[in-house]
Amino acid sequence: MSTDTRDRILSTALELFHANGYSATGVLDITRAAGVPKGSFYHFFQSKEALAVETVKQYQGVVRYELLEKSSQSPLERIREHLAYITKMAEAEHFQRGCLLGNFSNEMPSQSAVVTAVVEQSLTLWTDKLAAAIAEAQAEEEISNRSDPRRLAGFIIASFEGAVARSKVTRSRAPLDGFLETVYSDVLA
Amino acid sequence: MSTDTRDRILSTALELFHANGYSATGVLDITRAAGVPKGSFYHFFQSKEALAVETVKQYQGVVRYELLEKSSQSPLERIREHLAYITKMAEAEHFQRGCLLGNFSNEMPSQSAVVTAVVEQSLTLWTDKLAAAIAEAQAEEEISNRSDPRRLAGFIIASFEGAVARSKVTRSRAPLDGFLETVYSDVLA
Repeated sequence: MSTDTRDRILSTALELFHANGYSATGVLDITRAAGVPKGSFYHFFQSKEALAVETVKQYQGVVRYELLEKSSQSPLERIREHLAYITKMAEAEHFQRGCLLGNFSNEMPSQSAVVTAVVEQSLTLWTDKLAAAIAEAQAEEEISNRSDPRRLAGFIIASFEGAVARSKVTRSRAPLDGFLETVYSDVLA
Repeated sequence: MSTDTRDRILSTALELFHANGYSATGVLDITRAAGVPKGSFYHFFQSKEALAVETVKQYQGVVRYELLEKSSQSPLERIREHLAYITKMAEAEHFQRGCLLGNFSNEMPSQSAVVTAVVEQSLTLWTDKLAAAIAEAQAEEEISNRSDPRRLAGFIIASFEGAVARSKVTRSRAPLDGFLETVYSDVLA
Protein backbone atom coordinates (compact mmCIF):
# COMPACT_ATOMS: atom_id res chain seq x y z
CA MET A 1 0.00 0.00 0.00
CA SER A 2 1.54 3.26 -1.09
CA THR A 3 0.88 6.84 -0.04
CA ASP A 4 -0.45 7.02 -3.58
CA THR A 5 -3.40 4.91 -2.51
CA ARG A 6 -3.92 7.14 0.53
CA ASP A 7 -3.85 10.25 -1.67
CA ARG A 8 -6.29 8.66 -4.10
CA ILE A 9 -8.73 7.83 -1.28
CA LEU A 10 -8.39 11.35 0.14
CA SER A 11 -8.95 13.22 -3.13
CA THR A 12 -11.84 10.92 -4.12
CA ALA A 13 -13.47 11.42 -0.72
CA LEU A 14 -13.09 15.19 -1.04
CA GLU A 15 -14.86 15.05 -4.42
CA LEU A 16 -17.69 12.83 -3.19
CA PHE A 17 -18.26 14.65 0.11
CA HIS A 18 -18.22 17.93 -1.79
CA ALA A 19 -20.63 16.74 -4.46
CA ASN A 20 -23.03 14.57 -2.44
CA GLY A 21 -22.45 15.26 1.25
CA TYR A 22 -21.11 13.20 4.11
CA SER A 23 -24.18 11.11 5.00
CA ALA A 24 -24.89 10.25 1.38
CA THR A 25 -21.32 8.99 0.81
CA GLY A 26 -20.35 5.57 2.18
CA VAL A 27 -16.85 4.12 2.57
CA LEU A 28 -17.71 1.67 -0.21
CA ASP A 29 -18.65 4.54 -2.55
CA ILE A 30 -15.25 6.07 -1.87
CA THR A 31 -13.14 2.94 -2.36
CA ARG A 32 -15.09 1.98 -5.49
CA ALA A 33 -14.69 5.44 -7.05
CA ALA A 34 -11.00 5.48 -6.08
CA GLY A 35 -10.53 2.01 -7.57
CA VAL A 36 -8.94 0.57 -4.43
CA PRO A 37 -9.94 -2.48 -2.35
CA LYS A 38 -12.26 -1.67 0.56
CA GLY A 39 -9.76 -3.18 3.02
CA SER A 40 -7.14 -0.60 2.07
CA PHE A 41 -9.37 2.15 3.45
CA TYR A 42 -8.88 1.10 7.06
CA HIS A 43 -5.16 0.74 6.52
CA PHE A 44 -4.97 4.52 6.04
CA PHE A 45 -7.98 5.94 7.90
CA GLN A 46 -9.58 4.96 11.18
CA SER A 47 -13.05 5.89 10.03
CA LYS A 48 -15.08 7.92 7.54
CA GLU A 49 -15.08 10.65 10.19
CA ALA A 50 -11.26 10.73 10.39
CA LEU A 51 -11.13 10.90 6.61
CA ALA A 52 -13.61 13.81 6.58
CA VAL A 53 -11.28 15.76 8.90
CA GLU A 54 -8.47 15.32 6.35
CA THR A 55 -10.68 16.45 3.45
CA VAL A 56 -11.46 19.72 5.27
CA LYS A 57 -7.74 20.36 5.78
CA GLN A 58 -7.08 19.58 2.11
CA TYR A 59 -9.88 21.93 1.06
CA GLN A 60 -8.16 24.89 2.75
CA GLY A 61 -5.67 24.85 -0.11
CA VAL A 62 -8.49 24.86 -2.67
CA VAL A 63 -10.05 28.07 -1.34
CA ARG A 64 -6.72 29.90 -1.76
CA TYR A 65 -6.79 32.21 1.25
CA GLU A 66 -3.32 33.32 0.19
CA LEU A 67 -4.84 35.49 -2.55
CA LEU A 68 -5.83 37.80 0.32
CA GLU A 69 -2.19 38.29 1.22
CA LYS A 70 -0.41 38.98 -2.08
CA SER A 71 1.59 42.10 -1.39
CA SER A 72 1.91 43.19 -5.03
CA GLN A 73 -1.75 44.32 -5.07
CA SER A 74 -3.78 46.77 -3.04
CA PRO A 75 -5.92 45.24 -0.26
CA LEU A 76 -9.19 45.83 -2.14
CA GLU A 77 -7.71 44.34 -5.32
CA ARG A 78 -6.72 41.24 -3.32
CA ILE A 79 -10.23 40.94 -1.88
CA ARG A 80 -11.69 41.28 -5.39
CA GLU A 81 -9.35 38.64 -6.79
CA HIS A 82 -10.12 36.21 -3.96
CA LEU A 83 -13.90 36.61 -4.21
CA ALA A 84 -13.77 36.39 -8.01
CA TYR A 85 -11.74 33.19 -7.66
CA ILE A 86 -14.15 31.45 -5.28
CA THR A 87 -17.21 32.42 -7.34
CA LYS A 88 -15.48 31.12 -10.51
CA MET A 89 -14.78 27.84 -8.71
CA ALA A 90 -18.52 27.41 -8.19
CA GLU A 91 -19.16 28.22 -11.84
CA ALA A 92 -16.52 25.74 -13.03
CA GLU A 93 -18.45 23.01 -11.20
CA HIS A 94 -21.71 24.14 -12.83
CA PHE A 95 -23.03 25.25 -9.43
CA GLN A 96 -23.41 21.64 -8.37
CA ARG A 97 -21.16 21.49 -5.32
CA GLY A 98 -21.11 24.79 -3.51
CA CYS A 99 -18.40 25.26 -0.89
CA LEU A 100 -17.36 22.28 1.22
CA LEU A 101 -17.12 24.47 4.33
CA GLY A 102 -20.66 25.76 3.85
CA ASN A 103 -22.02 22.30 3.07
CA PHE A 104 -20.31 20.84 6.12
CA SER A 105 -21.43 23.80 8.32
CA ASN A 106 -24.95 22.70 7.59
CA GLU A 107 -24.49 18.97 7.68
CA MET A 108 -21.77 18.10 10.19
CA PRO A 109 -22.91 19.63 13.51
CA SER A 110 -25.55 16.88 13.78
CA GLN A 111 -23.10 14.20 12.61
CA SER A 112 -19.65 14.79 14.09
CA ALA A 113 -18.16 17.16 16.67
CA VAL A 114 -14.64 16.44 15.42
CA VAL A 115 -15.34 17.40 11.81
CA THR A 116 -17.37 20.43 12.95
CA ALA A 117 -14.37 21.64 14.99
CA VAL A 118 -12.04 21.50 12.00
CA VAL A 119 -14.64 23.28 9.81
CA GLU A 120 -14.79 26.04 12.44
CA GLN A 121 -10.97 26.31 12.48
CA SER A 122 -10.92 26.68 8.74
CA LEU A 123 -13.68 29.31 8.71
CA THR A 124 -11.90 31.24 11.48
CA LEU A 125 -8.61 31.23 9.57
CA TRP A 126 -10.42 32.47 6.46
CA THR A 127 -12.21 35.18 8.47
CA ASP A 128 -8.89 36.32 10.00
CA LYS A 129 -7.27 36.74 6.60
CA LEU A 130 -10.24 38.55 5.07
CA ALA A 131 -10.51 40.80 8.17
CA ALA A 132 -6.83 41.72 7.84
CA ALA A 133 -7.30 42.69 4.18
CA ILE A 134 -10.43 44.75 5.04
CA ALA A 135 -8.53 46.54 7.84
CA GLU A 136 -5.75 47.37 5.38
CA ALA A 137 -8.27 48.63 2.80
CA GLN A 138 -9.74 50.89 5.50
CA ALA A 139 -6.29 52.14 6.54
CA GLU A 140 -5.38 52.88 2.94
CA GLU A 141 -8.79 54.56 2.44
CA GLU A 142 -9.76 52.28 -0.42
CA ILE A 143 -13.13 51.87 1.31
CA SER A 144 -14.94 54.41 3.45
CA ASN A 145 -16.89 51.88 5.58
CA ARG A 146 -15.37 52.10 9.08
CA SER A 147 -17.21 49.15 10.65
CA ASP A 148 -15.30 46.46 12.55
CA PRO A 149 -13.28 44.49 9.94
CA ARG A 150 -13.83 41.17 11.72
CA ARG A 151 -17.57 41.64 11.79
CA LEU A 152 -17.58 42.60 8.10
CA ALA A 153 -15.35 39.64 7.21
CA GLY A 154 -17.57 37.14 9.06
CA PHE A 155 -20.63 38.65 7.41
CA ILE A 156 -19.13 38.53 3.90
CA ILE A 157 -18.06 34.89 4.29
CA ALA A 158 -21.51 33.93 5.59
CA SER A 159 -23.06 35.84 2.67
CA PHE A 160 -20.86 33.98 0.22
CA GLU A 161 -21.83 30.63 1.76
CA GLY A 162 -25.51 31.53 1.52
CA ALA A 163 -25.15 32.78 -2.05
CA VAL A 164 -23.23 29.73 -3.25
CA ALA A 165 -25.88 27.45 -1.70
CA ARG A 166 -28.57 29.44 -3.50
CA SER A 167 -26.62 29.07 -6.77
CA LYS A 168 -26.83 25.29 -6.31
CA VAL A 169 -30.60 25.63 -6.13
CA THR A 170 -30.91 27.97 -9.13
CA ARG A 171 -28.03 26.37 -11.08
CA SER A 172 -26.94 29.85 -12.08
CA ARG A 173 -24.46 32.62 -11.31
CA ALA A 174 -27.25 35.07 -10.41
CA PRO A 175 -27.02 34.70 -6.60
CA LEU A 176 -23.22 35.03 -6.78
CA ASP A 177 -23.42 38.11 -9.00
CA GLY A 178 -25.89 39.66 -6.54
CA PHE A 179 -23.47 38.81 -3.72
CA LEU A 180 -20.48 40.45 -5.45
CA GLU A 181 -22.41 43.55 -6.48
CA THR A 182 -23.82 44.07 -2.98
CA VAL A 183 -20.43 43.52 -1.31
CA TYR A 184 -18.78 46.19 -3.46
CA SER A 185 -21.69 48.67 -3.75
CA ASP A 186 -23.18 48.41 -0.29
CA VAL A 187 -20.78 46.78 2.18
CA LEU A 188 -17.15 47.43 1.23
CA ALA A 189 -18.06 50.83 -0.19
CA MET B 1 -55.73 5.46 9.23
CA SER B 2 -56.61 9.02 10.11
CA THR B 3 -55.31 12.34 8.83
CA ASP B 4 -53.96 12.49 12.38
CA THR B 5 -51.44 9.81 11.47
CA ARG B 6 -50.55 11.71 8.29
CA ASP B 7 -50.02 14.92 10.29
CA ARG B 8 -47.89 13.08 12.83
CA ILE B 9 -45.67 11.62 10.09
CA LEU B 10 -45.37 15.04 8.45
CA SER B 11 -44.46 16.99 11.60
CA THR B 12 -42.04 14.27 12.75
CA ALA B 13 -40.36 14.25 9.33
CA LEU B 14 -40.04 18.03 9.41
CA GLU B 15 -38.31 17.79 12.80
CA LEU B 16 -35.94 15.01 11.73
CA PHE B 17 -35.07 16.48 8.32
CA HIS B 18 -34.48 19.83 10.00
CA ALA B 19 -32.31 18.39 12.76
CA ASN B 20 -30.38 15.68 10.91
CA GLY B 21 -30.82 16.24 7.18
CA TYR B 22 -32.56 14.28 4.43
CA SER B 23 -29.92 11.63 3.71
CA ALA B 24 -29.36 10.87 7.39
CA THR B 25 -33.09 10.33 8.01
CA GLY B 26 -34.67 7.07 6.84
CA VAL B 27 -38.37 6.25 6.53
CA LEU B 28 -37.97 3.86 9.46
CA ASP B 29 -36.51 6.67 11.62
CA ILE B 30 -39.58 8.74 10.83
CA THR B 31 -42.23 6.08 11.50
CA ARG B 32 -40.47 4.99 14.71
CA ALA B 33 -40.21 8.55 16.05
CA ALA B 34 -43.83 9.21 15.04
CA GLY B 35 -44.93 5.99 16.74
CA VAL B 36 -46.77 4.65 13.70
CA PRO B 37 -46.35 1.36 11.80
CA LYS B 38 -43.95 1.53 8.88
CA GLY B 39 -46.68 0.35 6.50
CA SER B 40 -48.78 3.42 7.26
CA PHE B 41 -46.10 5.64 5.72
CA TYR B 42 -46.79 4.47 2.18
CA HIS B 43 -50.52 4.82 2.72
CA PHE B 44 -50.00 8.59 2.96
CA PHE B 45 -46.80 9.34 1.04
CA GLN B 46 -45.44 7.86 -2.17
CA SER B 47 -41.84 8.21 -1.06
CA LYS B 48 -39.46 9.99 1.31
CA GLU B 49 -38.97 12.50 -1.50
CA ALA B 50 -42.72 13.25 -1.74
CA LEU B 51 -42.79 13.71 2.03
CA ALA B 52 -39.84 16.11 1.90
CA VAL B 53 -41.77 18.30 -0.57
CA GLU B 54 -44.60 18.54 1.98
CA THR B 55 -42.20 19.43 4.82
CA VAL B 56 -40.84 22.37 2.81
CA LYS B 57 -44.39 23.65 2.22
CA GLN B 58 -45.17 23.23 5.92
CA TYR B 59 -41.97 25.10 6.85
CA GLN B 60 -43.12 28.20 4.96
CA GLY B 61 -45.57 28.82 7.80
CA VAL B 62 -42.77 28.46 10.38
CA VAL B 63 -40.66 31.24 8.86
CA ARG B 64 -43.61 33.68 9.14
CA TYR B 65 -43.11 35.73 5.99
CA GLU B 66 -46.32 37.51 6.96
CA LEU B 67 -44.40 39.54 9.57
CA LEU B 68 -43.01 41.44 6.58
CA GLU B 69 -46.53 42.53 5.61
CA LYS B 70 -48.13 43.75 8.86
CA SER B 71 -49.52 47.14 7.97
CA SER B 72 -49.58 48.49 11.53
CA GLN B 73 -45.80 48.93 11.52
CA SER B 74 -43.37 50.85 9.35
CA PRO B 75 -41.58 48.77 6.68
CA LEU B 76 -38.24 48.87 8.54
CA GLU B 77 -39.95 47.87 11.80
CA ARG B 78 -41.50 44.90 10.00
CA ILE B 79 -38.13 43.86 8.60
CA ARG B 80 -36.59 44.14 12.08
CA GLU B 81 -39.37 42.07 13.65
CA HIS B 82 -39.09 39.39 10.96
CA LEU B 83 -35.29 39.09 11.20
CA ALA B 84 -35.44 39.14 15.02
CA TYR B 85 -38.01 36.35 14.85
CA ILE B 86 -35.99 34.05 12.61
CA THR B 87 -32.79 34.56 14.62
CA LYS B 88 -34.70 33.80 17.85
CA MET B 89 -36.00 30.60 16.27
CA ALA B 90 -32.41 29.48 15.79
CA GLU B 91 -31.61 30.38 19.39
CA ALA B 92 -34.65 28.51 20.73
CA GLU B 93 -33.25 25.36 19.10
CA HIS B 94 -29.83 25.96 20.64
CA PHE B 95 -28.35 26.60 17.19
CA GLN B 96 -28.67 22.92 16.35
CA ARG B 97 -30.94 23.00 13.32
CA GLY B 98 -30.38 26.14 11.30
CA CYS B 99 -32.96 26.92 8.63
CA LEU B 100 -34.56 24.05 6.72
CA LEU B 101 -34.40 26.06 3.47
CA GLY B 102 -30.67 26.69 3.90
CA ASN B 103 -29.98 23.09 4.91
CA PHE B 104 -31.95 21.79 1.93
CA SER B 105 -30.32 24.35 -0.44
CA ASN B 106 -27.04 22.67 0.38
CA GLU B 107 -28.18 19.08 0.52
CA MET B 108 -31.03 18.57 -1.93
CA PRO B 109 -29.63 19.67 -5.33
CA SER B 110 -27.56 16.47 -5.40
CA GLN B 111 -30.46 14.36 -4.08
CA SER B 112 -33.74 15.48 -5.63
CA ALA B 113 -34.78 17.92 -8.37
CA VAL B 114 -38.37 17.92 -7.11
CA VAL B 115 -37.49 18.97 -3.56
CA THR B 116 -34.95 21.50 -4.87
CA ALA B 117 -37.68 23.10 -7.00
CA VAL B 118 -39.99 23.58 -4.03
CA VAL B 119 -37.09 25.00 -1.94
CA GLU B 120 -36.46 27.50 -4.72
CA GLN B 121 -40.16 28.46 -4.82
CA SER B 122 -40.12 29.07 -1.11
CA LEU B 123 -36.92 31.15 -1.21
CA THR B 124 -38.33 33.19 -4.12
CA LEU B 125 -41.56 33.90 -2.24
CA TRP B 126 -39.53 35.00 0.81
CA THR B 127 -37.28 37.20 -1.37
CA ASP B 128 -40.34 38.83 -2.99
CA LYS B 129 -41.84 39.74 0.38
CA LEU B 130 -38.58 41.08 1.80
CA ALA B 131 -37.91 43.03 -1.43
CA ALA B 132 -41.37 44.63 -1.18
CA ALA B 133 -40.70 45.73 2.42
CA ILE B 134 -37.26 47.13 1.45
CA ALA B 135 -38.81 49.05 -1.48
CA GLU B 136 -41.37 50.55 0.92
CA ALA B 137 -38.65 51.47 3.43
CA GLN B 138 -36.80 53.24 0.60
CA ALA B 139 -39.97 55.04 -0.55
CA GLU B 140 -40.70 56.18 3.02
CA GLU B 141 -37.04 57.21 3.42
CA GLU B 142 -36.48 54.97 6.43
CA ILE B 143 -33.27 53.85 4.74
CA SER B 144 -31.04 55.86 2.45
CA ASN B 145 -29.61 52.89 0.50
CA ARG B 146 -31.06 53.17 -3.02
CA SER B 147 -29.81 49.85 -4.39
CA ASP B 148 -32.20 47.45 -6.13
CA PRO B 149 -34.53 46.05 -3.41
CA ARG B 150 -34.63 42.56 -4.96
CA ARG B 151 -30.86 42.33 -5.06
CA LEU B 152 -30.64 43.50 -1.43
CA ALA B 153 -33.37 41.06 -0.37
CA GLY B 154 -31.65 38.09 -2.03
CA PHE B 155 -28.37 39.11 -0.47
CA ILE B 156 -29.84 39.49 3.03
CA ILE B 157 -31.57 36.10 2.87
CA ALA B 158 -28.36 34.44 1.65
CA SER B 159 -26.46 36.20 4.45
CA PHE B 160 -28.95 34.94 7.00
CA GLU B 161 -28.62 31.39 5.67
CA GLY B 162 -24.83 31.59 5.88
CA ALA B 163 -24.94 33.11 9.36
CA VAL B 164 -27.37 30.55 10.74
CA ALA B 165 -25.21 27.74 9.35
CA ARG B 166 -22.18 29.31 11.03
CA SER B 167 -24.14 29.52 14.31
CA LYS B 168 -24.64 25.74 14.10
CA VAL B 169 -20.87 25.36 13.91
CA THR B 170 -20.11 27.79 16.76
CA ARG B 171 -23.24 26.88 18.77
CA SER B 172 -23.65 30.55 19.56
CA ARG B 173 -25.60 33.68 18.61
CA ALA B 174 -22.41 35.52 17.57
CA PRO B 175 -22.72 34.95 13.79
CA LEU B 176 -26.40 35.98 13.93
CA ASP B 177 -25.62 39.11 15.95
CA GLY B 178 -22.93 40.02 13.41
CA PHE B 179 -25.47 39.45 10.65
CA LEU B 180 -28.11 41.72 12.24
CA GLU B 181 -25.65 44.47 13.08
CA THR B 182 -24.18 44.49 9.56
CA VAL B 183 -27.60 44.47 7.92
CA TYR B 184 -28.72 47.54 9.89
CA SER B 185 -25.40 49.46 10.03
CA ASP B 186 -24.01 48.71 6.60
CA VAL B 187 -26.69 47.39 4.23
CA LEU B 188 -30.14 48.77 5.11
CA ALA B 189 -28.60 52.02 6.32
